[in-house]
Amino acid sequence: MIDIFDRLKENPGPLGQFADYGEGYFVFPKLEGKIGPRMMFQGKEVIFWSANDYLGLCNHPEVLEADAKAAAEYGMFYPMGARAMSGETEQHQQLERELAEFVGKEAAYLLNFGYQGMLSTIDALVSRHDVIVYDSDAHACIVDGVRLHMGKSFMFRHNDVESLEKNLERATKVAEEQGGGILVITEGVFGMRGEQGKLKEICALKDRFRFRLLVDDAHGFGTLGKTGAGAGEEQGCQEQIDVYFSTFAKSMAGFGAFIAGEKDIIRILKYNLRSQVFAKSLTMPMVIGGLKRLELLRSRPEIKEKLWYNVHKLQDGLRARGFNLGNTNTCVTPVYMEGTPVEATLLSRDLRENYGIFTSVVVYPVIPKGMILLRLIPTASHTDSEIDETLAAFESIHEKLVAGVYKEQANKLLEEQNLSFKEI
Amino acid sequence: MIDIFDRLKENPGPLGQFADYGEGYFVFPKLEGKIGPRMMFQGKEVIFWSANDYLGLCNHPEVLEADAKAAAEYGMFYPMGARAMSGETEQHQQLERELAEFVGKEAAYLLNFGYQGMLSTIDALVSRHDVIVYDSDAHACIVDGVRLHMGKSFMFRHNDVESLEKNLERATKVAEEQGGGILVITEGVFGMRGEQGKLKEICALKDRFRFRLLVDDAHGFGTLGKTGAGAGEEQGCQEQIDVYFSTFAKSMAGFGAFIAGEKDIIRILKYNLRSQVFAKSLTMPMVIGGLKRLELLRSRPEIKEKLWYNVHKLQDGLRARGFNLGNTNTCVTPVYMEGTPVEATLLSRDLRENYGIFTSVVVYPVIPKGMILLRLIPTASHTDSEIDETLAAFESIHEKLVAGVYKEQANKLLEEQNLSFKEI
Repeated sequence: MIDIFDRLKENPGPLGQFADYGEGYFVFPKLEGKIGPRMMFQGKEVIFWSANDYLGLCNHPEVLEADAKAAAEYGMFYPMGARAMSGETEQHQQLERELAEFVGKEAAYLLNFGYQGMLSTIDALVSRHDVIVYDSDAHACIVDGVRLHMGKSFMFRHNDVESLEKNLERATKVAEEQGGGILVITEGVFGMRGEQGKLKEICALKDRFRFRLLVDDAHGFGTLGKTGAGAGEEQGCQEQIDVYFSTFAKSMAGFGAFIAGEKDIIRILKYNLRSQVFAKSLTMPMVIGGLKRLELLRSRPEIKEKLWYNVHKLQDGLRARGFNLGNTNTCVTPVYMEGTPVEATLLSRDLRENYGIFTSVVVYPVIPKGMILLRLIPTASHTDSEIDETLAAFESIHEKLVAGVYKEQANKLLEEQNLSFKEI
Repeated sequence: MIDIFDRLKENPGPLGQFADYGEGYFVFPKLEGKIGPRMMFQGKEVIFWSANDYLGLCNHPEVLEADAKAAAEYGMFYPMGARAMSGETEQHQQLERELAEFVGKEAAYLLNFGYQGMLSTIDALVSRHDVIVYDSDAHACIVDGVRLHMGKSFMFRHNDVESLEKNLERATKVAEEQGGGILVITEGVFGMRGEQGKLKEICALKDRFRFRLLVDDAHGFGTLGKTGAGAGEEQGCQEQIDVYFSTFAKSMAGFGAFIAGEKDIIRILKYNLRSQVFAKSLTMPMVIGGLKRLELLRSRPEIKEKLWYNVHKLQDGLRARGFNLGNTNTCVTPVYMEGTPVEATLLSRDLRENYGIFTSVVVYPVIPKGMILLRLIPTASHTDSEIDETLAAFESIHEKLVAGVYKEQANKLLEEQNLSFKEI
């Protein structure tokens, strides 16, 4: 037998292997100053494209005021314990009513954190006889929720309705044998590639298959649909989403999350979500601050218009310069290039150091080998000139990439330092 | 096959069946006003014994000021995303250094929420060849973490070292066969019954068995040990706890959590905790507020002294009146009585309505059939007169219980309303 600490030290995991090289720069970078399109990174100002704060609400004066007033009145501990024990307030219920109305559902229930909230939602919805069918690109919290499931689960190819159909056929057979039901899980917007889940097509399958649909709309809520109600509204099938989930960590510029659906089911879930029954209620400042944010979502459509103006300007500008943005049909702006992980890090470093542009960079195994993905999240706060600067910078680094500048640097670096990454 | 919503409506779960009867009163009660030993419940002032805010820090003026100032400066969104992506700050690192020092470990890592943090800690520590051995009374977050494990797990009888030994023998065999290791998980303090985990005895088993020990010290941190470093300090075996976990939702009067241990392991964990790598960093006001709370834990030993004065006064007073407090050796004060769940609700209602005392009430299946558990959490904020009032009230309701007053009421009620609970 072994010692589990020894094993961990021998194999620090897919991300951990980069710790000695990239910590503080590519992983765990410190962005400083007020959140916004310009932040400080290692003492230099950068144009920042990774905030997830689509509507720029995090620094909206009314939001900051609501957060500060609530914190002054309630502190960070209010209300005390788990919602069911001692963590219930009128304000929690108020925010739930308003969220339900906003997304067009009968009822909503707040979650103290999105990740564990999703996990427990999946866990509470299924019994061991049920079958889960989920998209292969689903977020880690969905994957962990599925991992808790004692029964069968089938993964369908990302956004591939044919693959979903085949898996629904298998799932139906199993559910029939076991006397169980089927839960389909997908996302409103896939946060890495920016593709909307094919909700309309999936909902249409309800004519032929019997299942309930759970949608994680983290990136859709507040950004998609006429009123900002998300990907379901955008695609005209919000009603057929049985359990709607969104975090507050994107458009709502906060943390925590909620689920929404028919009244009876939401009520049953609130008694059965283990991470909610056995852990602390969402803190009051985020609830009162959440009411303010939602009010702005409803009453200031010009903020979402500005966001989309920026999205179009950025994406059109990149496409006009020949960049491959994949299939994004949302605000998420992935820029795909060809190159190795080492080239990616050199390109990204060049972009930060010499062009003052900070983006997330994603490599294999998150995306296929040989690809580099720079992900930009435009917000309503970005200005024309910040977008123009970014477009020019991307043009320049792309030229260098194609001309082999980073490849040459990479080879030199690898020779000099005798670096080796397991994934290369 | 079935529809999963139909099944949920047919069987709303162990807690959900009480929804129509107890919602707003026994479950999801609304406590109003400033958090403290006296709060408002349904328009009447009650002495409140369920805050978990052991040190009474939630309303400490310095804490409220720190929370409010941080919220005014940073809002609730700061710092943006996941710790590894864009959620790193100097203040997060500072709080980690101070927490590590406080609990006598090389390093600490903040967790955005305790429940999912524990889940992912277990998940990151074990591979499928490892064996988990855990206490049967472990908190839901530990149970969910164990549920994620693909390999073997064995449960030992609550706080029973002999049972643990037997399970370690089995675990060692399996680990040897599979080339895996062993992780033992227990709690510093079991929050329901108030018993300390037998950490010293468990650590002593390291002489004969090879395992790593993960301890959830939610109720021990800040309340036990000379410096408040928790159950490990209290029992003189803090060093042998390999991964120390505590939430901020008790003595730290907040939310979020941390793990602490040797530097190399904490560093590896921070790259592998899925709920941390793929979800938002702990919000800045809780980090800055956390630094203030920790400063008070260190610099104001008189607060912990006041807490223990109250604990002794309450527990000695209850014991002197013949109450059964089980095996508590911590602040958690469980009062065991004999009776049915319906008697428990009537007693608890009487206590709230006619004596102005609010406690949690726990019945089967959390504790054995025929038992009632009223759980009191004394804090440093409770006053002598609040404790005296509570003791008198308990004496009075206990007399009524023994005299069969609640049983009589219960029978009448059950006849009149034709009520039936599945668990009765």
